[in-house]
Amino acid sequence: MDIRRSIIMNCVKDDSDLPKAYHWLYKYHVQESMSQFAPYVTKYSTYRALPVPPNGQDFGTYNWIMTEHYWLINPFENVASNMPRGLAFSEYWPDDFMEITNQPPTSTLRERSWMGSKDGYHPIVFAFLPIFWELDFKGEGRTPEDGPNYRWQIVFKYPEGVDPVEGDRWFVEELAPVIAEMSEVNRFISSKILDEPRTCPFHRVAEIWFDSSKEWYKAFVEGADKLPKPQWATQDKFPFVEPYKDFTGIFLLDRAESDHLTQFNGYKTGR
Amino acid sequence: MDIRRSIIMNCVKDDSDLPKAYHWLYKYHVQESMSQFAPYVTKYSTYRALPVPPNGQDFGTYNWIMTEHYWLINPFENVASNMPRGLAFSEYWPDDFMEITNQPPTSTLRERSWMGSKDGYHPIVFAFLPIFWELDFKGEGRTPEDGPNYRWQIVFKYPEGVDPVEGDRWFVEELAPVIAEMSEVNRFISSKILDEPRTCPFHRVAEIWFDSSKEWYKAFVEGADKLPKPQWATQDKFPFVEPYKDFTGIFLLDRAESDHLTQFNGYKTGR
Amino acid sequence: MDIRRSIIMNCVKDDSDLPKAYHWLYKYHVQESMSQFAPYVTKYSTYRALPVPPNGQDFGTYNWIMTEHYWLINPFENVASNMPRGLAFSEYWPDDFMEITNQPPTSTLRERSWMGSKDGYHPIVFAFLPIFWELDFKGEGRTPEDGPNYRWQIVFKYPEGVDPVEGDRWFVEELAPVIAEMSEVNRFISSKILDEPRTCPFHRVAEIWFDSSKEWYKAFVEGADKLPKPQWATQDKFPFVEPYKDFTGIFLLDRAESDHLTQFNGYKTGR
Amino acid sequence: MDIRRSIIMNCVKDDSDLPKAYHWLYKYHVQESMSQFAPYVTKYSTYRALPVPPNGQDFGTYNWIMTEHYWLINPFENVASNMPRGLAFSEYWPDDFMEITNQPPTSTLRERSWMGSKDGYHPIVFAFLPIFWELDFKGEGRTPEDGPNYRWQIVFKYPEGVDPVEGDRWFVEELAPVIAEMSEVNRFISSKILDEPRTCPFHRVAEIWFDSSKEWYKAFVEGADKLPKPQWATQDKFPFVEPYKDFTGIFLLDRAESDHLTQFNGYKTGR
Amino acid sequence: MDIRRSIIMNCVKDDSDLPKAYHWLYKYHVQESMSQFAPYVTKYSTYRALPVPPNGQDFGTYNWIMTEHYWLINPFENVASNMPRGLAFSEYWPDDFMEITNQPPTSTLRERSWMGSKDGYHPIVFAFLPIFWELDFKGEGRTPEDGPNYRWQIVFKYPEGVDPVEGDRWFVEELAPVIAEMSEVNRFISSKILDEPRTCPFHRVAEIWFDSSKEWYKAFVEGADKLPKPQWATQDKFPFVEPYKDFTGIFLLDRAESDHLTQFNGYKTGR
Amino acid sequence: MDIRRSIIMNCVKDDSDLPKAYHWLYKYHVQESMSQFAPYVTKYSTYRALPVPPNGQDFGTYNWIMTEHYWLINPFENVASNMPRGLAFSEYWPDDFMEITNQPPTSTLRERSWMGSKDGYHPIVFAFLPIFWELDFKGEGRTPEDGPNYRWQIVFKYPEGVDPVEGDRWFVEELAPVIAEMSEVNRFISSKILDEPRTCPFHRVAEIWFDSSKEWYKAFVEGADKLPKPQWATQDKFPFVEPYKDFTGIFLLDRAESDHLTQFNGYKTGR
Repeated sequence: MDIRRSIIMNCVKDDSDLPKAYHWLYKYHVQESMSQFAPYVTKYSTYRALPVPPNGQDFGTYNWIMTEHYWLINPFENVASNMPRGLAFSEYWPDDFMEITNQPPTSTLRERSWMGSKDGYHPIVFAFLPIFWELDFKGEGRTPEDGPNYRWQIVFKYPEGVDPVEGDRWFVEELAPVIAEMSEVNRFISSKILDEPRTCPFHRVAEIWFDSSKEWYKAFVEGADKLPKPQWATQDKFPFVEPYKDFTGIFLLDRAESDHLTQFNGYKTGR
Repeated sequence: MDIRRSIIMNCVKDDSDLPKAYHWLYKYHVQESMSQFAPYVTKYSTYRALPVPPNGQDFGTYNWIMTEHYWLINPFENVASNMPRGLAFSEYWPDDFMEITNQPPTSTLRERSWMGSKDGYHPIVFAFLPIFWELDFKGEGRTPEDGPNYRWQIVFKYPEGVDPVEGDRWFVEELAPVIAEMSEVNRFISSKILDEPRTCPFHRVAEIWFDSSKEWYKAFVEGADKLPKPQWATQDKFPFVEPYKDFTGIFLLDRAESDHLTQFNGYKTGR
Repeated sequence: MDIRRSIIMNCVKDDSDLPKAYHWLYKYHVQESMSQFAPYVTKYSTYRALPVPPNGQDFGTYNWIMTEHYWLINPFENVASNMPRGLAFSEYWPDDFMEITNQPPTSTLRERSWMGSKDGYHPIVFAFLPIFWELDFKGEGRTPEDGPNYRWQIVFKYPEGVDPVEGDRWFVEELAPVIAEMSEVNRFISSKILDEPRTCPFHRVAEIWFDSSKEWYKAFVEGADKLPKPQWATQDKFPFVEPYKDFTGIFLLDRAESDHLTQFNGYKTGR
Repeated sequence: MDIRRSIIMNCVKDDSDLPKAYHWLYKYHVQESMSQFAPYVTKYSTYRALPVPPNGQDFGTYNWIMTEHYWLINPFENVASNMPRGLAFSEYWPDDFMEITNQPPTSTLRERSWMGSKDGYHPIVFAFLPIFWELDFKGEGRTPEDGPNYRWQIVFKYPEGVDPVEGDRWFVEELAPVIAEMSEVNRFISSKILDEPRTCPFHRVAEIWFDSSKEWYKAFVEGADKLPKPQWATQDKFPFVEPYKDFTGIFLLDRAESDHLTQFNGYKTGR
Repeated sequence: MDIRRSIIMNCVKDDSDLPKAYHWLYKYHVQESMSQFAPYVTKYSTYRALPVPPNGQDFGTYNWIMTEHYWLINPFENVASNMPRGLAFSEYWPDDFMEITNQPPTSTLRERSWMGSKDGYHPIVFAFLPIFWELDFKGEGRTPEDGPNYRWQIVFKYPEGVDPVEGDRWFVEELAPVIAEMSEVNRFISSKILDEPRTCPFHRVAEIWFDSSKEWYKAFVEGADKLPKPQWATQDKFPFVEPYKDFTGIFLLDRAESDHLTQFNGYKTGR
Repeated sequence: MDIRRSIIMNCVKDDSDLPKAYHWLYKYHVQESMSQFAPYVTKYSTYRALPVPPNGQDFGTYNWIMTEHYWLINPFENVASNMPRGLAFSEYWPDDFMEITNQPPTSTLRERSWMGSKDGYHPIVFAFLPIFWELDFKGEGRTPEDGPNYRWQIVFKYPEGVDPVEGDRWFVEELAPVIAEMSEVNRFISSKILDEPRTCPFHRVAEIWFDSSKEWYKAFVEGADKLPKPQWATQDKFPFVEPYKDFTGIFLLDRAESDHLTQFNGYKTGR
């Protein structure tokens, strides 16, 4: 059996959209989602993004939430086969949902591929991952007793024209050892993003953990020069590719704001 | 992986049996069921039937509950292979359970196949369905915000001697478009009933939704003449086959009376 | 400390209003209510009325739900003192709530006192009771193991002009012993309705329990002649006063459809 | 407002009664109790007794469970006033409940006062305590982070003829300081047992905490000679009065086996 | 009975303290708190502060969490009577708790009274309020259906030397009407802070609600000139007193991040 | 799909280790485990061992807990493939965990195979079973209404050199019929232990149920002579092999002490 994890990163246009965005999430969306996929999702949690740290936007940092699911099935299989979606209910979205979450209009989105950019849209990042981490670079053995964790979760792609195999070689052999050496880093793990289903353009996901944002800043802003630049870099400095387009991330606690399946029990419907 | 949905419809002989039937359900059955199948059932909900509307018995309407499960395995596999049922506990039934739920005696049931009829028994309907609806005739896009839903859930079979392929052709090409046209109908979806496991004689399940029983009555009692009669009809009027034998149904809200796995936590046992 | 119980009986105009009424209850009302009074309500449950039995309307039978609360405070104290209600949020009601629940328009209700009648309105019955039953006429010692219970919960008043003390004398000394003698009756308890707060015109509440509606019918319809008629009767037969005006009731299981505080956890707000 | 705590200690006759005793507790009793007192009990937990340590029976050690409630009202007020108990349901007890729990027959119990003794009955100990501990002899400041706790919970009375004031003087001024001095003791707190309601003959409750039974043994069995004997002692050695008659206790973890109000949700009834 | 509400506002020194602060809250504190006061607290919720809006620090805005309790008793009564605290367990705090939450060292705090200031400490604000709001200036009738709410919760005191009665006269007669007139304000309610128990120096609490931070900014930063200045002002502009010393506030959603009593069930201990 | 059950038996060195062992279990382990495997475990329950009955150690009886899981995947697959474990967090163990649970030091365990013995270590028994019982020797049809159950759960292996097929032949054809004949036995079921994953040396699991320990003693201690001895016996009396090495067991109620996934909700982390 193939249980898949997925992560979804969301932005808001600015902080003033938070009341509206959260009102949608907890008043409408969580219960509608659970009504729809409770039979085949085994975990459904939302993490609130920690505040974007200084310089965070140079790393494509998303500012609202990360939502994690574990799926017993591929929920996009029907879509892939051009069959009906097969659900009794659709989900409710407020008219200005795309706007307050800093996304391109739905119509635009349908015509074109994913289109994030530093000063433009920050569309939803929806990536499917293996259930277990594939690479473990540092910190195996860390337990929840070992103190607070400031998790930097990132997804990224190599620029067009770069062979992903070569990209990964650089990541694993050149970049990762340098990161793992940094004394501020407590934990470092990574996986390839899955192709089935493919719901975003990114190649890889990683998590790098620190005690707090200060250690992150020391390592990745002040210590940026230590990070080895690949030949195919489209930017001078790490992440070496365009933030919000080729590289996105979010800063998280190790505990979800809400583990919905065990903590929320509103107006659930049949499917 | 093959996650299956199942629906179970139950009748009581008359309203005076409700206290006994519900006492069995919540004092004994729900916790016994969960003890047994919690490891492989991901959703288990009971919907109380809405009152049978005027003329409802002409459509084989069941009057007590509909129970829905989602299964990670085929729970009848052992039975099919003549192996032991493999469960530490059996379920408790009061002596007169078959009688108060208007079913043939267990002994009779074992000897013969499913035997409902309008003026006779209304045995349990237990049907396995695909997890997603296969056909979506009307109302895709309806959200829980769009108002109350009066769900008519029906299962039916074509009469003996009729090729189910021909039956389905009539349903999809002739009947469904007429129903979808009716202004009282808000939503209309359907699937074939699964063969693995096969636990009832029916071919197909459908749900047709209205605002309330008034709209149902207008559409299906007052508007019965609009519905196209197949050649093989065994009755003059829709459903064109014998209610409670070839056609059964139940009227439901869109929210279950109890979503047992999240709301009930009584004396659960090991298996 | 004075913990009070309250009971609320609700009707719908007819069965076709149930989807709308339930949609309001579970999609809006339960979570709004809990947000408001969770700090001072220790139990909040809704029981769905069993179907009105034959002749049930001669006894003022309500056909939708009975909701029970236990209050640590008098929630109407502010109202009594002409102070602000003191709540951050009000509750949502659909525009046609009064109509679908067979009540007089709000404006009418404000001008006049409670105004139920057999063929007119069936306004909400909201009565406050002591936390313990005051009178125990029959069946003390019954446990939940002793079988299903068909509970007839009634509230009533003596007609205008009758001294409630005399009314109660008749109830306790003349009527109750006859009811307690009936072989169909398993349990019989009663209390006075409280004056603080007074939210309805009724004097007394009682519960009479049977195995099922058949025993109720035998006792109170077929056996009506055994019941002693008071001098002040305004009707020839029991309940001797006008149903829906001076006498209302509802038929219930012994288990609530939903014990909200432990089973429902939707969009709750601060107060 | 007067919120009261109560503790109930229960024995079984011998270990072979445990399956029967637990079957009663979780299959019948917990849900019946919650149905009855949920409106006025704010916490209801059961702790399983740790195994009786060596010599434990010399200290009146109970071997099954301790159940703790917090009450918003005095639940025995009606009984004290000779009013009806006022509850719709009674609780179910198996026929041999008194026997398997090592109690005198109910009839005997009614005629006589509480009658425990070392080699005779070990009747239920039901004591009401103030919500806060009144005396704090040692270990204030201990947090749940400070390690496991082996709690010795004891209730005792001074022998007949001894003025409880004098008894308490001895306890507070002579005994407690010696116990507080013992290096094995981590925590030591005590309260008077309440008179309203009075449901047992005991004067005082205390808890003395250790790392484990080894430290308890070292302190109270091996170190018994250090404990100052009062003039009115009826036994040579601590507890200086007859175990199971004047002195009872139970060994507990700091976490309940089940916090029923939040963890158990079976067949609950109206009251 | 006197049920009291309390609110607690907490700051962190800067965003980099959030992982540590949250780790303490959910890994240690919530379960310890519930173990301690579950018998006499009927609601216990934590709201995460929304980001401090532009100019927010001029209004004494707290940047971490607001925690709300409803108490059945005065939990500081024992302290007031110089009795033992009466709890079996104390709560765990990390060594640097006072520092990361921007508070004076505990020793300093004990010697002196509450000591917040704009550029100094932002100590915990712990205020007890009546269970119902006493003054309702605008927006009665708002329901949770009426859209998102951006709640500005403020507590403040009049400067030393100002008679609180005169302060309140200014607030109610001069300031409140102007605020209520502002088109950006959706809801405005207020109460006096209680004296029993008194756990902070503030006189009054209020909540003013907006659609989002933009409307707050328009009303209270851009529109500051409209707000009537009292004679006793110690600052030229609203709030007319020193932020973080005499005036504090926090920006909240209408839904708590966690309603602990219903959503959290960790290692709970006896008391 | 292959859903597997697993059982884990644990001992403590002696009763004085229980506070420490339980403190680890509920303060650390349950929440860490759920954080790790909630996405692929559908049931996770802990049963507290009933007290070891007289002579129980001759049958390899474990004295602390049995923990049961149901797995949607093989959690040891990564280990088998020498891949990283793939989990963000490891689990916390106190330094003396192996010692208090009577296990060999971890280092020893890694070098050698499973090494229990009567007077030596009692290492964790971790066995994977099919989801359904394969053999049903007695008592099919027993329901939870049929009274308390004293479950003897055993796992065992045939001695080295004995062909397991021959061992099983003896078990099924010779031993099982004798046990099934015993009047004290209410229920008797068995399965082979799975090879994928193989986490212990045992061949077979069985459960034999009684009313209480008295009936067990009568059947298996007093009635030991009735049990047919195999040629390959390494001990004269049943179990005919060395307890704690080739034969282990535990005595259980039919209800778990805690069904963690539905009853425990502490500090859960991402994975």
